[in-house]
Amino acid sequence: MTAGRTIDLNSDLGEGFGIWRLGDDDALLEVVTSANVACGFHAGDPDILRRVCGRAAERGVVIGAQVSYRDLAGFGRRSIDVPADSLTNDVLYQLGALDAFARIAGSAVRYVKPHGALYNRIVHDEEQAAAVVAAVLAYDRTLPVLGLPGSAWLGLAAEAGLSTVGEAFADRGYTASATLVPRSQSGALLTDPDDVADRVLRMVDSGVVRSAEGTDVEVSAGSVCVHGDSPGAVAMAIAVRDRLLAAGVEVRSFAR
Amino acid sequence: MTAGRTIDLNSDLGEGFGIWRLGDDDALLEVVTSANVACGFHAGDPDILRRVCGRAAERGVVIGAQVSYRDLAGFGRRSIDVPADSLTNDVLYQLGALDAFARIAGSAVRYVKPHGALYNRIVHDEEQAAAVVAAVLAYDRTLPVLGLPGSAWLGLAAEAGLSTVGEAFADRGYTASATLVPRSQSGALLTDPDDVADRVLRMVDSGVVRSAEGTDVEVSAGSVCVHGDSPGAVAMAIAVRDRLLAAGVEVRSFAR
Amino acid sequence: MTAGRTIDLNSDLGEGFGIWRLGDDDALLEVVTSANVACGFHAGDPDILRRVCGRAAERGVVIGAQVSYRDLAGFGRRSIDVPADSLTNDVLYQLGALDAFARIAGSAVRYVKPHGALYNRIVHDEEQAAAVVAAVLAYDRTLPVLGLPGSAWLGLAAEAGLSTVGEAFADRGYTASATLVPRSQSGALLTDPDDVADRVLRMVDSGVVRSAEGTDVEVSAGSVCVHGDSPGAVAMAIAVRDRLLAAGVEVRSFAR
Amino acid sequence: MTAGRTIDLNSDLGEGFGIWRLGDDDALLEVVTSANVACGFHAGDPDILRRVCGRAAERGVVIGAQVSYRDLAGFGRRSIDVPADSLTNDVLYQLGALDAFARIAGSAVRYVKPHGALYNRIVHDEEQAAAVVAAVLAYDRTLPVLGLPGSAWLGLAAEAGLSTVGEAFADRGYTASATLVPRSQSGALLTDPDDVADRVLRMVDSGVVRSAEGTDVEVSAGSVCVHGDSPGAVAMAIAVRDRLLAAGVEVRSFAR
Repeated sequence: MTAGRTIDLNSDLGEGFGIWRLGDDDALLEVVTSANVACGFHAGDPDILRRVCGRAAERGVVIGAQVSYRDLAGFGRRSIDVPADSLTNDVLYQLGALDAFARIAGSAVRYVKPHGALYNRIVHDEEQAAAVVAAVLAYDRTLPVLGLPGSAWLGLAAEAGLSTVGEAFADRGYTASATLVPRSQSGALLTDPDDVADRVLRMVDSGVVRSAEGTDVEVSAGSVCVHGDSPGAVAMAIAVRDRLLAAGVEVRSFAR
Repeated sequence: MTAGRTIDLNSDLGEGFGIWRLGDDDALLEVVTSANVACGFHAGDPDILRRVCGRAAERGVVIGAQVSYRDLAGFGRRSIDVPADSLTNDVLYQLGALDAFARIAGSAVRYVKPHGALYNRIVHDEEQAAAVVAAVLAYDRTLPVLGLPGSAWLGLAAEAGLSTVGEAFADRGYTASATLVPRSQSGALLTDPDDVADRVLRMVDSGVVRSAEGTDVEVSAGSVCVHGDSPGAVAMAIAVRDRLLAAGVEVRSFAR
Repeated sequence: MTAGRTIDLNSDLGEGFGIWRLGDDDALLEVVTSANVACGFHAGDPDILRRVCGRAAERGVVIGAQVSYRDLAGFGRRSIDVPADSLTNDVLYQLGALDAFARIAGSAVRYVKPHGALYNRIVHDEEQAAAVVAAVLAYDRTLPVLGLPGSAWLGLAAEAGLSTVGEAFADRGYTASATLVPRSQSGALLTDPDDVADRVLRMVDSGVVRSAEGTDVEVSAGSVCVHGDSPGAVAMAIAVRDRLLAAGVEVRSFAR
Repeated sequence: MTAGRTIDLNSDLGEGFGIWRLGDDDALLEVVTSANVACGFHAGDPDILRRVCGRAAERGVVIGAQVSYRDLAGFGRRSIDVPADSLTNDVLYQLGALDAFARIAGSAVRYVKPHGALYNRIVHDEEQAAAVVAAVLAYDRTLPVLGLPGSAWLGLAAEAGLSTVGEAFADRGYTASATLVPRSQSGALLTDPDDVADRVLRMVDSGVVRSAEGTDVEVSAGSVCVHGDSPGAVAMAIAVRDRLLAAGVEVRSFAR
């Protein structure tokens, strides 16, 4: 994929709220090179933002804004018909809030990755995609944006002059047309750490992945998304990272 | 008060939420020199922040962060026992969020004024006062802070090296010991625009105000707070501003 | 429309939150026979629910639950992809909460009318419509439901054995096919109280309304919706009520 | 304690929100006789209320309302200066909402137990205690209330004619004056299931508990609170229940 056999590993972090926790932030910060930090709209209260940004900065993990619809009750997983101007402003609010914590930790928000239903909607919805692009342009047009290859989101961002990074998913099955196998079907989720590590290494080395139908499909990505919401997920993320390092791949962020 | 007969006029702005409005932001932005903009915790959604910051910047009105407890239902008027570390982080979150809008409007957050129950509590509560001071120090130690003269808030801020500005209230009665007449007592609120304008001019010229008991008390302030939550309040703010200008007082912000 | 020339007048009430107010609840409670009371999800805090239910009960105005998506920031005007089971539960939560206040006022929730984006979505979306119907069935299958004639919402409710009531809009223009003129077009909103009062009387007397195209269209309704979000709106509601009474129409609720 | 060697076991349930979970509701519903169900203000969304009420009713566990300050971010653990009338209304709102789910499950809200900071505050704060009492009186004066023996809450409730039930804590140390050892001190939390089971049995049999100072102190309680927020806590709750049953104590709710 990227020249010189380098790849970024990203993961969602800071997704607790108040007393509640989700995933093992500390374990993942030992593995990934990019942290998609929740900004308070679907998860992530100020205490969590402070802590995750501080530890990410200490570990040299790059901080990205995982922006979302305003939806704590639905964890940002419900598509909402937010008017475009309001969506732009919702994203700006989140970018500024997270950046405060990134900066006092000696770092800064260095990329933007939408979350959940917003992530999925702006694959196709050009109006909402453009609204998120507008927020990034207004806030800091040097920020790269992360998302699904071929999405309206990355397309419009590129047209607007933003740097774009496509991501692949370590533990998701792909169809023969390079889309993800829907979660409702078998083969949607891969669970064997060795298999997953092999697949990711092959993506990096050859830019292809074996589809559920058995054919190889092209998957060009600058970053690979791993998860940490279960002990098994963390173990898988470690397996992926270790396989890459053992193969001489440099694991590093796409951002400055 | 300040040398050269200058004074700042500040007011609370952006205190609507969603469909709801409070006060006449546009009218006040024609009058005041400092806008205490709500940051989303007691009022102020991202659309409102965008609009108020934009118009404030256009009008040359300085933007300050009106930080609050997280309390939309109580409009930030209920004292909350927030642990100190969490309060610091709540303030940081609000500073960052507002700053995003101030900066894309070509301005920046240039001072900090706590709101409502937090304003009142840190007059005396040193732990919470220190927590808000810690947030300002972490975010930007060049930001001046605005509050009640003699409060723990201003005292601890000054000790920490922050620039502090005391404020007087245009339309509130003062006791003989220079505290505000409680709202439950007669004489708490002054309603005649001419009287109020006279009082403010006298504060600026002589540093004194006539107390409810009839004696003159010293009121040293770098800023005077006016309100805009009724047509009468806006008229009063205009009367104050016009009287000051007619007397040759320069009305300008204390901030850069 | 209903036999014996009777009609119900309904209006949205209790749509403030915290310090914010919207509409003149007290004035409308002197006019309408059915109060669609906000339940806290798009507007309406517990203090407001207490007050509106108390005054409605005193005035003999029937209380209905104006249920909504969970969306204070958007005032319930943004369509949300809430899963059906969750939507059922969201409605149940609101029904129970409002009923507490209706009952301690000596009344009870006596009908259900969805609000805003939910109202509009379940005109066509059968899954969400069925989810709201399921909530009413589970809570109290004797409650009538109020909505747009011809909507999936009323259709599925009727199939499930619920009593249904269609509503007409006093101040909205109708197309020749009996749908509402979209708000983006001229003729969407009628502003002359006399004209509006005439139209409503004609709806009651003859079951027809003059469309924007000039033809008469059938409008069969058991309730007419009036608004109170401006002084003019209240005046219009009064004009409608007075015209009906002067013509000998009985204005009374469709509910027990 | 109660005649005939019977005791109630209560526990906090339904304390997740959205995607987040806290404690093992299903395991506890196999152990306790009274479920203090969160009502949405500190935890507990409508889906969770539906599920917990349904399973509690199936298991014959009595449902109580665990009412709280409005404080998701602080899990209801921050004392808030809510005006008395508003606190009454906040409690009424929660009672009604939970009751909807209890009733459709074939049960009903059968007692009230305040949560967290509200629980602690109304031990001493008579104004807030009276406000919660007022809510119960208005909602259903046959509902018993659960709380700390000797608290203003139970005292004012009894004066108002409500049935009151004091609770003891299975896993907390007691001082020689029968108060709880503060969490900041050693001996605050007991961790050995056998010891804890012995203590609870002795409370039931003899109405006394060994204090941290080594003396026996009187602990008269109609209910014993157990927790389920860790595997160890569930195991302890089971140990307590089994010891009581083995000793021939009847474990049953104090409520109808």
